[in-house]
Amino acid sequence: MAVAPLKVGIVGLGNVGTGVARILTDHPHRIAERAGRPIVLKRAVVRNLNKPRDIRLESGVLTNDIQAVINDPEITVAMELMGGIHPAREVILALLKAGKDVVTANKALLCEHGNEIFHAAREYGRTVCFEAAVAGGIPIIAAVGQSMAANQIIAIQAILNGTSNYILTEMQANHQHYHTALKQAQDLGYAESDPTLDVNGLDAAQKLGILCQLAFGTRVTTSQFEIQGIDSLDLSDLKCASDLGYHIKLLAQARLTNRELEMSVRPTLIRKDTPLSQISGPFNAVLLEGDMVGKMWYSGRGAGQAPTASACAADLIDLAVGRAQLTFERLDLWRERPEYPVMPADQTTSRYFLRLRVEDKPNVMAEVTGILGAKGISLASIVQPEAPEVDAKSNTPVVPLVIMTHRTTAGQLQEAMSELDLSSSVRGPRICLAVAD
Amino acid sequence: MAVAPLKVGIVGLGNVGTGVARILTDHPHRIAERAGRPIVLKRAVVRNLNKPRDIRLESGVLTNDIQAVINDPEITVAMELMGGIHPAREVILALLKAGKDVVTANKALLCEHGNEIFHAAREYGRTVCFEAAVAGGIPIIAAVGQSMAANQIIAIQAILNGTSNYILTEMQANHQHYHTALKQAQDLGYAESDPTLDVNGLDAAQKLGILCQLAFGTRVTTSQFEIQGIDSLDLSDLKCASDLGYHIKLLAQARLTNRELEMSVRPTLIRKDTPLSQISGPFNAVLLEGDMVGKMWYSGRGAGQAPTASACAADLIDLAVGRAQLTFERLDLWRERPEYPVMPADQTTSRYFLRLRVEDKPNVMAEVTGILGAKGISLASIVQPEAPEVDAKSNTPVVPLVIMTHRTTAGQLQEAMSELDLSSSVRGPRICLAVAD
Repeated sequence: MAVAPLKVGIVGLGNVGTGVARILTDHPHRIAERAGRPIVLKRAVVRNLNKPRDIRLESGVLTNDIQAVINDPEITVAMELMGGIHPAREVILALLKAGKDVVTANKALLCEHGNEIFHAAREYGRTVCFEAAVAGGIPIIAAVGQSMAANQIIAIQAILNGTSNYILTEMQANHQHYHTALKQAQDLGYAESDPTLDVNGLDAAQKLGILCQLAFGTRVTTSQFEIQGIDSLDLSDLKCASDLGYHIKLLAQARLTNRELEMSVRPTLIRKDTPLSQISGPFNAVLLEGDMVGKMWYSGRGAGQAPTASACAADLIDLAVGRAQLTFERLDLWRERPEYPVMPADQTTSRYFLRLRVEDKPNVMAEVTGILGAKGISLASIVQPEAPEVDAKSNTPVVPLVIMTHRTTAGQLQEAMSELDLSSSVRGPRICLAVAD
Repeated sequence: MAVAPLKVGIVGLGNVGTGVARILTDHPHRIAERAGRPIVLKRAVVRNLNKPRDIRLESGVLTNDIQAVINDPEITVAMELMGGIHPAREVILALLKAGKDVVTANKALLCEHGNEIFHAAREYGRTVCFEAAVAGGIPIIAAVGQSMAANQIIAIQAILNGTSNYILTEMQANHQHYHTALKQAQDLGYAESDPTLDVNGLDAAQKLGILCQLAFGTRVTTSQFEIQGIDSLDLSDLKCASDLGYHIKLLAQARLTNRELEMSVRPTLIRKDTPLSQISGPFNAVLLEGDMVGKMWYSGRGAGQAPTASACAADLIDLAVGRAQLTFERLDLWRERPEYPVMPADQTTSRYFLRLRVEDKPNVMAEVTGILGAKGISLASIVQPEAPEVDAKSNTPVVPLVIMTHRTTAGQLQEAMSELDLSSSVRGPRICLAVAD
């Protein structure tokens, strides 16, 4: 092959960076065949040159000087794989200014500074690729930007955090308690040492934000919609949902309703006989609904070295072939332009699953349904399983009450729940979860 | 937008052709925005100008003269949407020779004449796009050719025929008999008026052939692997599989084993707690396993006007943007080159589900397991449900026997089944189905 090789610099040789370096060094022929020319790793920038590494690189490749990438005109593509906001933001801006196309997997950065980065890329005539930033190995950026190009996307439903999904699967299938399952996820390397952003829903919310930018051209910050994590779920919630025919998943949702975006990230009941409910362990899934193609969905590993590196390498190949540049020009992201506004959280609608503990006395079901009815919430079912117990605080007998509502607004539900909290017949803790359509 | 429009000719204005025309005429702004320039339908070639149609086209667009497309230098992209082998083959060759890029959804043609068509395209420096030829709305061509470019694909498992899947879903979920479900599929427009190719597995086999060309660079004809349709399945088979925790799907499979391709299309038992088993109704699904990304999968509507037209329109947009030309150059399809050979059908391996009717007498289970054991087939389970009946022919009491084998070759199984057929204790009909891993 006589075509000049594409020379690449990697900034950050952690888990993903090492994975990309490995693909390039282990499979040079495969990559050259698919890219139309060799892709050569010229420099890998690390903080600590002496740290032991899982990969052998040719001498001279490893450096601790970012300028060795920025100032090398031979390097036309740079990969930011450090993660975090700073100095990743400054590094990407410097790389773009130096005339490099950039590949990144940094969802937090894009969510927060996508505007600035894409503006700079357009100003300098460069391309930014970020297939690995959302749902790891799932080619969701290509799906939205290219394969569904004839469609207006009208809804997204997605499982975007592998750690949460692993924990929920363990709780559901193996009856593990939350903290045991979380510990396992950490031992298996799925969860970060600080898993807060995984289990509190923020990681999924950042990814949903990027998907909404792509699908709806709307810039969304994570403060604009309801985010609820899985950290308050109890085994008994999963058991109760299961008895009704549902699994609980951390579901990220966005739906176009009357030109507004209804968005949320929260534990959600999903019917067992749907593919989405069967996504297990560390897998991610994204369901897109287009006005032409209907429902389309994608599943695969959302994180991990090889899947994420596979997505980064696909970006590199796209840049080498020249496709990425054409796509970037058309994607038109993070621009100032008319957007679909995000619907205020209290106006979003859903069906809900409620679990209350109520006093075991004759008129309590009438009282509860009365309060819900007064707020305009109609009920699909109300079940009182035979499992009386004694409330420790009041020393009175209590029974569980399981309610499925019809579609209602979050605001109505919130009002009803506040009123229920005031009722002397209702005892905490109470559970209120959304139910997927 | 000052960029010159892309002018398109459609050959064949049936269901899919009308869908594409509708997208172009109903959503010109959306398409222009995503394509970077307007895409204009200049000519639509039909056999009968006077046939009533579901779409209004500008005057002069409709023609019954294929030369109006071939000889118009303004038309740079032509869509072959006639279906069938002849004259579709001749039309595509003429269009390529006249310098047009071609979009087609014609799987049968590609399966049979892909070689000749891709050779001609390369000779004339043109591009052939065929996203809609396999799995309708699912962007599987883009997934294999682009998103998974860093991977060697090692396995494919797919539900590729929507009609069969609809019938099996109806049999499974609503206990419809095969012929009732088939009739429904026809009434709903899922099945062709002659549904033979849908239900005998050949349609799925042609699509699997194209996927294998893409994923493995191997040219496969449908005579090289086992193809079994759903037309001999009975309600009781689905019921029995369900009792064991499986759904039955028409599964197309290809797996790279020791540099050979193990391929088959046949009704297969799939565990209920997997997403693939939950693909219902007219939906398709494709599971790809890459050596980097692991298992990835895709699901969506495999047929129908809007999904197929959506895929064709994505091809048009890719051509307008210039991506399709770059991809085609790299895809390197239907070339003469080293291939992975297809493994002879009798050497392929699988787990199997057997259902026999045997005489209700003490030593029959020993006899059956003895015959299987002598052929080297080891058993995972053997169950004799209590459901004695009387064999009409011999007037002797018979009972069902349900066997799950461990992995064995199709050849071994065939030999064992022949021997069982000779046993006086075994009565037909007997069922033998593959079980997915």
